[in-house]
Amino acid sequence: MYLSTITISLRPSILDVQGKAVELGIHTLGLSAVSNVRIGKSIHMNVEASSEDEAKRITEEACKKLLANTVMEDFSFTVKKV
Amino acid sequence: MYLSTITISLRPSILDVQGKAVELGIHTLGLSAVSNVRIGKSIHMNVEASSEDEAKRITEEACKKLLANTVMEDFSFTVKKV
Repeated sequence: MYLSTITISLRPSILDVQGKAVELGIHTLGLSAVSNVRIGKSIHMNVEASSEDEAKRITEEACKKLLANTVMEDFSFTVKKV
Repeated sequence: MYLSTITISLRPSILDVQGKAVELGIHTLGLSAVSNVRIGKSIHMNVEASSEDEAKRITEEACKKLLANTVMEDFSFTVKKV
């Protein structure tokens, strides 16, 4: 079995309003050193596969078809045998 | 300047209903090899600091005070000079 760790983030050209709101909150806490906050998703899942290549293929298919909106988001992932 | 990459995930003992819903969706796509989907947040932010230790301190303070709900969530982060 493999553990896939996927990170999905908004493309850099897309305004991240959630990140902007969080940045404002962080500044209100007195942490003015923080800037350019961007918020994405982190997804962990188990993949039952006979090889690492197959696990990668399944993970990529799940990202493209369901997890990421490829118009607005980029995704990257790592696959680790567990 | 440093780039902090933070991952926030629900504690393992907490039911992840969002993950369960996504798992169902993935199975509906025909990818039955996927199980135990858990969804968290991935946050990137720039931190202006004079040393890596200071950047880590600021990042940890932001996580504890604002970004993570430490009752239900765990967080981890890496800090990289950019």
